[in-house]
Amino acid sequence: MIKLGIVGLGRLGKRHAENIAFRIQNAELLAVCSIVEDEIKDAQKNLGVKYAYKDFSEMLKNKELDAIVIASSSTEHCKQIEEALNAGFHVFSEKPLGINMHEVLRAREVVGKHNDKIFMLGFMRRYDASYAYAKKKIEEGIIGRPFLIRCYGLDPVKAVQGAIAFSEKSGGIFLDMAIHDIDLARWYLGSEVKSAYAIGGCYEYPEFKKYNDADNAVALLQFKNDAIGILYVGRTCTHGYHIETEIVGTEGSLRIGSIPQKNLVTIFDEKGAVQECVSGFLERFDQAYVAEIQEFVNCIIEKRKPKVGVDDGVMSTKVAYACKESFESNKLVIIE
Amino acid sequence: MIKLGIVGLGRLGKRHAENIAFRIQNAELLAVCSIVEDEIKDAQKNLGVKYAYKDFSEMLKNKELDAIVIASSSTEHCKQIEEALNAGFHVFSEKPLGINMHEVLRAREVVGKHNDKIFMLGFMRRYDASYAYAKKKIEEGIIGRPFLIRCYGLDPVKAVQGAIAFSEKSGGIFLDMAIHDIDLARWYLGSEVKSAYAIGGCYEYPEFKKYNDADNAVALLQFKNDAIGILYVGRTCTHGYHIETEIVGTEGSLRIGSIPQKNLVTIFDEKGAVQECVSGFLERFDQAYVAEIQEFVNCIIEKRKPKVGVDDGVMSTKVAYACKESFESNKLVIIE
Amino acid sequence: MIKLGIVGLGRLGKRHAENIAFRIQNAELLAVCSIVEDEIKDAQKNLGVKYAYKDFSEMLKNKELDAIVIASSSTEHCKQIEEALNAGFHVFSEKPLGINMHEVLRAREVVGKHNDKIFMLGFMRRYDASYAYAKKKIEEGIIGRPFLIRCYGLDPVKAVQGAIAFSEKSGGIFLDMAIHDIDLARWYLGSEVKSAYAIGGCYEYPEFKKYNDADNAVALLQFKNDAIGILYVGRTCTHGYHIETEIVGTEGSLRIGSIPQKNLVTIFDEKGAVQECVSGFLERFDQAYVAEIQEFVNCIIEKRKPKVGVDDGVMSTKVAYACKESFESNKLVIIE
Amino acid sequence: MIKLGIVGLGRLGKRHAENIAFRIQNAELLAVCSIVEDEIKDAQKNLGVKYAYKDFSEMLKNKELDAIVIASSSTEHCKQIEEALNAGFHVFSEKPLGINMHEVLRAREVVGKHNDKIFMLGFMRRYDASYAYAKKKIEEGIIGRPFLIRCYGLDPVKAVQGAIAFSEKSGGIFLDMAIHDIDLARWYLGSEVKSAYAIGGCYEYPEFKKYNDADNAVALLQFKNDAIGILYVGRTCTHGYHIETEIVGTEGSLRIGSIPQKNLVTIFDEKGAVQECVSGFLERFDQAYVAEIQEFVNCIIEKRKPKVGVDDGVMSTKVAYACKESFESNKLVIIE
Repeated sequence: MIKLGIVGLGRLGKRHAENIAFRIQNAELLAVCSIVEDEIKDAQKNLGVKYAYKDFSEMLKNKELDAIVIASSSTEHCKQIEEALNAGFHVFSEKPLGINMHEVLRAREVVGKHNDKIFMLGFMRRYDASYAYAKKKIEEGIIGRPFLIRCYGLDPVKAVQGAIAFSEKSGGIFLDMAIHDIDLARWYLGSEVKSAYAIGGCYEYPEFKKYNDADNAVALLQFKNDAIGILYVGRTCTHGYHIETEIVGTEGSLRIGSIPQKNLVTIFDEKGAVQECVSGFLERFDQAYVAEIQEFVNCIIEKRKPKVGVDDGVMSTKVAYACKESFESNKLVIIE
Repeated sequence: MIKLGIVGLGRLGKRHAENIAFRIQNAELLAVCSIVEDEIKDAQKNLGVKYAYKDFSEMLKNKELDAIVIASSSTEHCKQIEEALNAGFHVFSEKPLGINMHEVLRAREVVGKHNDKIFMLGFMRRYDASYAYAKKKIEEGIIGRPFLIRCYGLDPVKAVQGAIAFSEKSGGIFLDMAIHDIDLARWYLGSEVKSAYAIGGCYEYPEFKKYNDADNAVALLQFKNDAIGILYVGRTCTHGYHIETEIVGTEGSLRIGSIPQKNLVTIFDEKGAVQECVSGFLERFDQAYVAEIQEFVNCIIEKRKPKVGVDDGVMSTKVAYACKESFESNKLVIIE
Repeated sequence: MIKLGIVGLGRLGKRHAENIAFRIQNAELLAVCSIVEDEIKDAQKNLGVKYAYKDFSEMLKNKELDAIVIASSSTEHCKQIEEALNAGFHVFSEKPLGINMHEVLRAREVVGKHNDKIFMLGFMRRYDASYAYAKKKIEEGIIGRPFLIRCYGLDPVKAVQGAIAFSEKSGGIFLDMAIHDIDLARWYLGSEVKSAYAIGGCYEYPEFKKYNDADNAVALLQFKNDAIGILYVGRTCTHGYHIETEIVGTEGSLRIGSIPQKNLVTIFDEKGAVQECVSGFLERFDQAYVAEIQEFVNCIIEKRKPKVGVDDGVMSTKVAYACKESFESNKLVIIE
Repeated sequence: MIKLGIVGLGRLGKRHAENIAFRIQNAELLAVCSIVEDEIKDAQKNLGVKYAYKDFSEMLKNKELDAIVIASSSTEHCKQIEEALNAGFHVFSEKPLGINMHEVLRAREVVGKHNDKIFMLGFMRRYDASYAYAKKKIEEGIIGRPFLIRCYGLDPVKAVQGAIAFSEKSGGIFLDMAIHDIDLARWYLGSEVKSAYAIGGCYEYPEFKKYNDADNAVALLQFKNDAIGILYVGRTCTHGYHIETEIVGTEGSLRIGSIPQKNLVTIFDEKGAVQECVSGFLERFDQAYVAEIQEFVNCIIEKRKPKVGVDDGVMSTKVAYACKESFESNKLVIIE
């Protein structure tokens, strides 16, 4: 039984906490940490956790714990990773690894030093049943050699006011939203990005302009193996949360989530044949959030490294910064 | 150049006339006949026909004509077929062949006597690109031996008032609507119906009750080769005109028109992913109406029999009557 | 914490046991019972159960237990339900309730006597996210008044040899396979069946004939509110496990699972655009099996009755028998 | 009756000729011109044309003709347009307008001088029922303001050897294949392109490298109104001919042809649910080729300008050249 403590009980942190408490095998949610008192009370009441902390360092003193799950604000990730590893814990951190290149490189160094500890980064899409299946099929060779990927990451317009409020600190649309897609692109294509060119604009919400940000943007990536990446990120999607990925190979192609269907129901009415869509990431990736933490726990038990690690965080951040720089300068950016 | 005269210039007759005038190779629309003066005037103005008649017998005296297309009221079909064949013309008749067993059997006799003439019945679905493709695939064996067919024939609710008005004379929902499906079922399964059991009701429009009719009904057919037929006909379809057919075989199955899509556009909006649907038979079967008359003309030129003939009309009518009888009696009806 | 004991650790029993052990909140798998020694050993090893029994009566003596989950052979259900209720436990039983009318009526009587205990029947489809969503939408009125249901229950042909072996004891295709569909039909239409007419055959596997059984069959049901039910059950589905349900109402219709897609991946290759399909019920209804037991546990905790009870088992069995009788006699069967 | 002469009887020219002969209203195919004797003989035999020419200038002397349809090699378009306009004919020219900027600008000048004549360019996709419907819906405002377009233009791999043979003269993948997409992008977004950045490679067919060409390539376009264009052109599509367009607006989005379905048949077999795909442009755009020539003829009769003219050819060529230049230089190219 792996004993876990979690920091951060916001929307995603709460979901992780619930999953650990009820849906992860061989794991126990022993402690929670949050600066929001109500979140702590809720967790104690609903999840039956034994320990609750307002201070992260205090939680790290609890030696009953085996591992720490970090679901706090992005600004805290890197230092909490370091603190937790130094305190002797296995660490799972939500994406993004960090919010600037300096701290993600530092995180890499720290993780490197604690090679005996499991470190895993929350690129949960790799654990989504459909994404994992696509990877397996590609490895089996059914599309030949993959040479192009198209990634859509579109947030529901219903969430746009939150994005506007967060815009100042978000690092911009590529750092905020494209990180998952960049990770998927590297994973499926098996290569690193060598250049990025990005354009975009504020087509509906001029509020983003203030921080040099966009409500919709596209990046065109060139990989070291000459493969092509197309990233489209947007914050004005009316039909819901649209995560779509297409991988084109020399002998076929795969599409994942072309219609981000809510379920298997099709409604026939005056409008026609209607497939309703998922409303957000917690609905779309419900299963993946369970599977990634399960994998983290399994890695601890079986003493093996997860397939998604600190390097994936470093490289994805690097590419997101290149996209951001290109978008701001309207120039092609070479990633050395 | 085959010279055609058409009788009936209503919605479908007009479409046939336009097709012959502009879209059928090796054919010329030489004459039209209608009891509605305005229809004649329109045809003369828009289709450039040389001859126009108010009286069918008059048109038959025109020996420049090679063939007659009958698109008049269902009540006229049988006698006009007979008159036209006797006058020495090839004949294409719209479905249904006739409105009672007596006259369709008489029509069969008449057609038999004029074996040197081409007679073709307007079961145009057989000439629809998708239906024809399905037939070809079945003949190639891709689904093994077909043993079950499910046919949906749903009229748009927008047309229900017309159906109510026509209910007294229509012969009921099976004779009016299921004829095409019965023909398809016989064609795909390669067997004749041995029994029928049908139920239904007036779920939204009690107006149909007056004539012992239904707004929605289902028949379950057993074929001589033990295959199963499911027919669902309805008049209250909100999403448009829904013609769907599924053929299940021992090694696979085919579905035709599961979503009766208007075109290749999918709309993504607040409702989700929306595929608009076709509004009616002229939209859905536009291509099939051309192809069937083209086949009729080709048969005349090449002196060969079309694959859909008078027997198909006789057998389909027989089955429709069995469905009607079963619906009215709530008893299983054996077709001898 | 509700403490559960399970009897039967076959394919589905094992899944229930795993779910209770790892995925159900507020529940603990305390005991297992099986006549197969290896199954017991596996459960002890993998699920960490405290108690293991070869004899059902022995398990019932364990007063640490709160509730019993019955996943044994269908022939055992009724008597185990009775024994467990009499011993003072809440009971969840897999479908079917029983294998003949006599014992299901007896089960109803027994359940009635233990009104203070929760009894729930495993019609898990009602707890499938898509089926539950459809129910909610219907209750919201989006399709008006439902008047027709079409249910497909097609087992993968890969499982046909098992079905042949089981044919003698299965009670025939309707009792074996259509029970879930009958329950769904009653649930969505809100009415009971008044008559059934069924046909079918051995189109590919004559082996079923020996027991008067079929490899594919269709029933046409008439409900007391005049609604129509179409049931198609088959054992020769080449593309996988195909459970599809369509509910037609006066103002629209819903389809659930028209393509029984494996996941959100579409493969584009020489064949075209390919959507792979689910292989069996454990894959298709994974989430539903969790949700139904969760509901059972919640009902115990919250002292409320589940929405699916013994009457649903009795009525569904009655209808399945009527279908069987009609199939065997080729006559319309009235259910009194 | 508009009397047409056609030059070029290759694959597309032959289709145009057949359409004019049999499917276009108020038009007559009076003359054909080809340097291939067999093509002329075929046309005389099958299409019943009155005049046949080996020399284009000879055809232009025939004053019975009203208009000329140019379907010859791309290298001939510009000079034949000029010759035909100067000879007093209305002109329809297949795309591309020309093969270098110099000659397309010259063509614009010539067309400008013959303002009394109808000149129309063969961007037939605008006349495809689905594309035209999408335009109409956008004009009705259903997706708000369009700000992004994604265009896929993928040729079937079965045609790749032809593309390799033609590579030297084709002008490269963007000029050869992206012209239609560029026209659609301008049309839907209502703006001109201001910059282009393109990458690509020879992922499967190194033969294209010799001419600095690619087998797959992507361009990212920025429009004057800041809208975004994504063009993906490829020559290795295994599932057929894949033309897909997505237009994203502030209030919704449209997708056209996401699955390039052959027809309305879905095949269910061991692979799953399979939708077969169209094999090539003549199959996909059959209806559009008729509709565009019909529009050309209607414009002549009604003395009005078609919506697609010489400027569309000039601007599209300019953008294709910018893509080519960017692809070759790996630099962002600004279009002045």
